[in-house]
Amino acid sequence: MSSIAWEEIAAARELLAGVAVATPLLRPPVLEERTGVRAFLKAENLQRTGSFKIRGAVHRLSRLSEDERRRGVVAFSSGNHAQAVACAARLRGVSATIVMPSDAPRAKLEGTRSYGAKVRLYDREKESREEIAAAIAAATGAVLVRPYDDLDVIRGQGTCGLEIAEQSRSAGVTLDEVWVPTSGGGLAAGIGVALAALSPMTRVFTVEPAGFDDHRLSLERGERVLLTPSRSSLCDALLAPQPGELTWEINRSRLQGGLVVSDGEVKRAVAFAFRHLHLVLEPSGAAALAALLAGARGARGRAIGLVLSGGNIDPETLRDCLEAFPDG
Amino acid sequence: MSSIAWEEIAAARELLAGVAVATPLLRPPVLEERTGVRAFLKAENLQRTGSFKIRGAVHRLSRLSEDERRRGVVAFSSGNHAQAVACAARLRGVSATIVMPSDAPRAKLEGTRSYGAKVRLYDREKESREEIAAAIAAATGAVLVRPYDDLDVIRGQGTCGLEIAEQSRSAGVTLDEVWVPTSGGGLAAGIGVALAALSPMTRVFTVEPAGFDDHRLSLERGERVLLTPSRSSLCDALLAPQPGELTWEINRSRLQGGLVVSDGEVKRAVAFAFRHLHLVLEPSGAAALAALLAGARGARGRAIGLVLSGGNIDPETLRDCLEAFPDG
Repeated sequence: MSSIAWEEIAAARELLAGVAVATPLLRPPVLEERTGVRAFLKAENLQRTGSFKIRGAVHRLSRLSEDERRRGVVAFSSGNHAQAVACAARLRGVSATIVMPSDAPRAKLEGTRSYGAKVRLYDREKESREEIAAAIAAATGAVLVRPYDDLDVIRGQGTCGLEIAEQSRSAGVTLDEVWVPTSGGGLAAGIGVALAALSPMTRVFTVEPAGFDDHRLSLERGERVLLTPSRSSLCDALLAPQPGELTWEINRSRLQGGLVVSDGEVKRAVAFAFRHLHLVLEPSGAAALAALLAGARGARGRAIGLVLSGGNIDPETLRDCLEAFPDG
Repeated sequence: MSSIAWEEIAAARELLAGVAVATPLLRPPVLEERTGVRAFLKAENLQRTGSFKIRGAVHRLSRLSEDERRRGVVAFSSGNHAQAVACAARLRGVSATIVMPSDAPRAKLEGTRSYGAKVRLYDREKESREEIAAAIAAATGAVLVRPYDDLDVIRGQGTCGLEIAEQSRSAGVTLDEVWVPTSGGGLAAGIGVALAALSPMTRVFTVEPAGFDDHRLSLERGERVLLTPSRSSLCDALLAPQPGELTWEINRSRLQGGLVVSDGEVKRAVAFAFRHLHLVLEPSGAAALAALLAGARGARGRAIGLVLSGGNIDPETLRDCLEAFPDG
């Protein structure tokens, strides 16, 4: 059973008013012409800080006590949650320390610093970000803001699902499916709860990079699977090897299955978005679009919502994608 | 006096339904934080074919007679009008020949060909595109679709203004000004007519590249000025040396003045849009944003609509912009 009610997501939206953006639900004709799918794009790359993560971060920080606010917050993240917590902390007048891998995309490192957060870099190979964050919390009393295993974060991400339900209804469409790029599962959980209440005919699927398809496997087996990835992925924001605990309790009953995309398919989607949609997507943010362009699930004729979850890409990575698909 | 009534623009919108996209009016917090201006972005880079031009082209082609449809259409353009006429011709089942300069941006050449139009390249230095198009029209009977000096084209572009009026009203805002990237003046004219009727407190300004500020000068002097440009501009879609005849008859009484941007300011805006807005803009499409970021007109505190008129940029040009402004 879900531990979140959709009314709590509606309440979260009140706290996000004037801070998070209600991003557009786009319907580009070119995508329908190419795929035969009535594709609706939830453009979270146009969200404040360039990803959906600001929704959860601001909501979590809005619910700190006065005492917690004084102690500040700490978070670890490869980038989008980092920027979101840093931005939310500045908006709410709270100090923030962010633990980030030294090889995080430059756009994400610079973004995080630009909001005035203190950044503590660590070596992915040799150090544990959890231990560093715990030590900072112990030393300063700072509150750890988890990237997905936190009900207030999930409620915040769920506001994206409320908007999808309302915007598709305004467009006169009942979405058959919504595809969500997924790492720990917070966004999928929030969207799953919102759509179950407001658009119950819509089925929700995760999209994960090959080798990190722990949600797909967990949903197939009906239990929370832990992978030991043997390789990396271009999708730096989708590298969780296991569904979160709290998110899985929601997602096990809310989600219908998982799709998987290769790095090549993701590159093609980033290039397609640049050339034909005129949207800047980061690899992780293009995962659902990649699944569509790769022909996943034979979705022809159906109405599919694709979450474009983020746009924080370095110019060099975009160039690689464009050069890999010069005619796409 | 205007030779177009806003009701004719409303009628044009009926003909564009299901073909042109109602693009979003975005309000990115980052832009307001940086500039102090309540900036609203009309994202025509997200329009079908990547620019506003499809509005006028489809409307013009929707009003061809049966006999004209059989004869087909011909157009000349450096790119966005070319793609728009090619796409509109395919949608309306009409054959199209497009006369394009051989140095047009590759993205625009490829886009035009992708819609199935016949492309006739010419040398900007040695040939006259008007003469080539006239010869094609004489030989084939094809109807010339002008890029701006055509009332049906202007009516089509005006639908962008209808949307701006309605979307700003929905957002609870009366725009003080709208800034429009301008070449021959068709978009500015259409928006001018629409806003004069539906948002009469909103003042409309052109934005032109330095050296091609014929609208600014014409509006100052109260007469149609012809420039003899001594240099080029990065804004390949804004190189008209003179306001159109029909557009000027409208714009002389509808527009309040003109802003001018340098190539450097435009590059900075393209880079800013990539990094902070996650939107792909071509140089011409970024002209109004460039004027804002350059601090034009001390607009702090006011509500300004900026038309992002197109997004068809080559990767190499984007790279130049990002390298010129690595920290912006």
